[in-house]
Amino acid sequence: MLGFRRGCFEKVCVSSHGTIRGRVPRGLWKEQEQLETPVKRQLPPPGPSSTFLPPHTHTLDPSHTFWIVPFKKISPSFDSQTSQAFFPKRPIMEDLISREPRDLGRALCIITGASKGYGRALAFQLSCRLKPRSVLVLVARSTAQLNELKEDIVSLCGQNKLDVRCVQADLEETEGVEKTVQALKETNSTEMDHVLLINNAASLGDVSRFAQSFTDPAEVNRYLSLNVSGALSLTAGVLQAFPRRLGLRRTVVNISSLCALKPFPSWVLYCTGKAARDMMFRVLAEEEPDVRVLSYAPGPLDTDMQLQARRFSGDLNLRRSFCSMFSEHQLLSCEESGSKLIKLLLDNNFPSGAHLDFYEL
Amino acid sequence: MLGFRRGCFEKVCVSSHGTIRGRVPRGLWKEQEQLETPVKRQLPPPGPSSTFLPPHTHTLDPSHTFWIVPFKKISPSFDSQTSQAFFPKRPIMEDLISREPRDLGRALCIITGASKGYGRALAFQLSCRLKPRSVLVLVARSTAQLNELKEDIVSLCGQNKLDVRCVQADLEETEGVEKTVQALKETNSTEMDHVLLINNAASLGDVSRFAQSFTDPAEVNRYLSLNVSGALSLTAGVLQAFPRRLGLRRTVVNISSLCALKPFPSWVLYCTGKAARDMMFRVLAEEEPDVRVLSYAPGPLDTDMQLQARRFSGDLNLRRSFCSMFSEHQLLSCEESGSKLIKLLLDNNFPSGAHLDFYEL
Repeated sequence: MLGFRRGCFEKVCVSSHGTIRGRVPRGLWKEQEQLETPVKRQLPPPGPSSTFLPPHTHTLDPSHTFWIVPFKKISPSFDSQTSQAFFPKRPIMEDLISREPRDLGRALCIITGASKGYGRALAFQLSCRLKPRSVLVLVARSTAQLNELKEDIVSLCGQNKLDVRCVQADLEETEGVEKTVQALKETNSTEMDHVLLINNAASLGDVSRFAQSFTDPAEVNRYLSLNVSGALSLTAGVLQAFPRRLGLRRTVVNISSLCALKPFPSWVLYCTGKAARDMMFRVLAEEEPDVRVLSYAPGPLDTDMQLQARRFSGDLNLRRSFCSMFSEHQLLSCEESGSKLIKLLLDNNFPSGAHLDFYEL
Repeated sequence: MLGFRRGCFEKVCVSSHGTIRGRVPRGLWKEQEQLETPVKRQLPPPGPSSTFLPPHTHTLDPSHTFWIVPFKKISPSFDSQTSQAFFPKRPIMEDLISREPRDLGRALCIITGASKGYGRALAFQLSCRLKPRSVLVLVARSTAQLNELKEDIVSLCGQNKLDVRCVQADLEETEGVEKTVQALKETNSTEMDHVLLINNAASLGDVSRFAQSFTDPAEVNRYLSLNVSGALSLTAGVLQAFPRRLGLRRTVVNISSLCALKPFPSWVLYCTGKAARDMMFRVLAEEEPDVRVLSYAPGPLDTDMQLQARRFSGDLNLRRSFCSMFSEHQLLSCEESGSKLIKLLLDNNFPSGAHLDFYEL
């Protein structure tokens, strides 16, 4: 870490490798790494289509253009001339700077684990991308938080535009899945042109212990029940309730993780569950070519789950790594990660069944 | 398929691409595919270090040398001169042609799902590789078949050489895992220099249906309970019961599958379970550097599971493919696949946590 650039670029920190650390869109890191020499550019003329890099507390909004400091080395006291160097916009960010209104159609959109964290953020973000008279179904175990969220979304969108429904259900139980599917069936599917299911509900599991402590299959079963079986069963129920029909787009999103691909010590339940889910949805993609299936790894989000990871991870190196990411503001906001997921859904050209990571996009 | 070579090379069939089909070691296929022109060699002098390719009904034994017909094209009536063409031995097969006695030490060896199929074959093969006064624990749900197997192994090895024990247990239940671990604790671990656990027990699940039919989480849970939770819990129990000790080698094998990596339509339970297991054991390998962890994909074995696959696979292309593999004698014998696993264990230089496939070795 060689320096900070303050002013309109708050807390942008450039490492000795030319990579940027801090609350900046991480998708840009790769270009920073490829950067051999500093690029000097003039500030673009201020106008509605551009703005500065948002400060680190700023929520990344799709309507913003941002510019990244591209210096390979920045001293703490670098001068005003170099501070005016900018990085060209990346094509991948086109949508984020686009003002073209795009939507996900008149949709029945179901979000599990919607009461807090990533699910809650996605509910807000998706509600802005659904056509009038869409139905947004929020599923979680906690009624109180769901109702609050519903009120917030309705006050944002207006009741006439979006029909927001709450389903209190425990998806690890047969009854919970049945109750949710039953609630969905109340929607007249012939009026919809998109069914979008976001399988977000998940738990971290006990990360304080190592694999060799899990001697009781009943404990492992309980974890897999919510994180694997529940996700498969709800997906199956939704696809059965809304079968293939001309003009009906069907999309299933699996909120995945790097842990689906990479083993993390002391995270045996989480890694196992995520790997299982990824494969489950890959099979689904093979079987149902008309269903658009996406496993999206949202990156390390600044949520309660990360708090648990920092506090309880049994592997000390991993715990330190999470603490360091937090203190160095490397965690992503749910909105930042959600924007990229929504862009994927809007573009709708991902290979079905693919595992796509926030950082690869 | 251009011809058959009979005589000492029974049922060796060479395709137009120069590949060999039939019950021959599949590890040699690649070299056959690379073969551009027929290689003619003289028969090696008969002697203790060489023998002919065993007929297709022969159990491949590590002490055998075999030779493969390398012709690119063989007519059904090819003459005696061409029949004397041979393929050089592959380095990978060194162990199979070696007469050097190697063993897995004085071991406590546990095999789950031992009553039939691959588990049963491994029990036989491993019993020949354990030092005198080793303990072989056979675990399965069926007592009768286990006792038969025990008798067969004892009559092969002699009671004084090997202590064979049977444990009737259902590993998807907490009691089953506890009962098995309790039975293992009766072994005096200080006398052992190797604890070897083969997690072989598995079920195929209902392959007649597609993912979108699995609407009941309880059904999915039951599958994962044996195939994922049971394997983790038993492994944890064994590692706890036999902790790290100087001079004690600890090896955990996960009998994996290509399905851990590749989605098979209508096999959602099996693929999900195998992917979950692979990840679970990768985490274990990260956490316990002293434990040797191997996920071994044994290839398509000629077992009851393959019979189920041919009869019931809901995906017709997959079913046809399995039927074709069967009719073209492409299925592997348990012994052939087991030999390669045993070679891996004897060599003991695989990267811990790796997924290794019969065909890649």
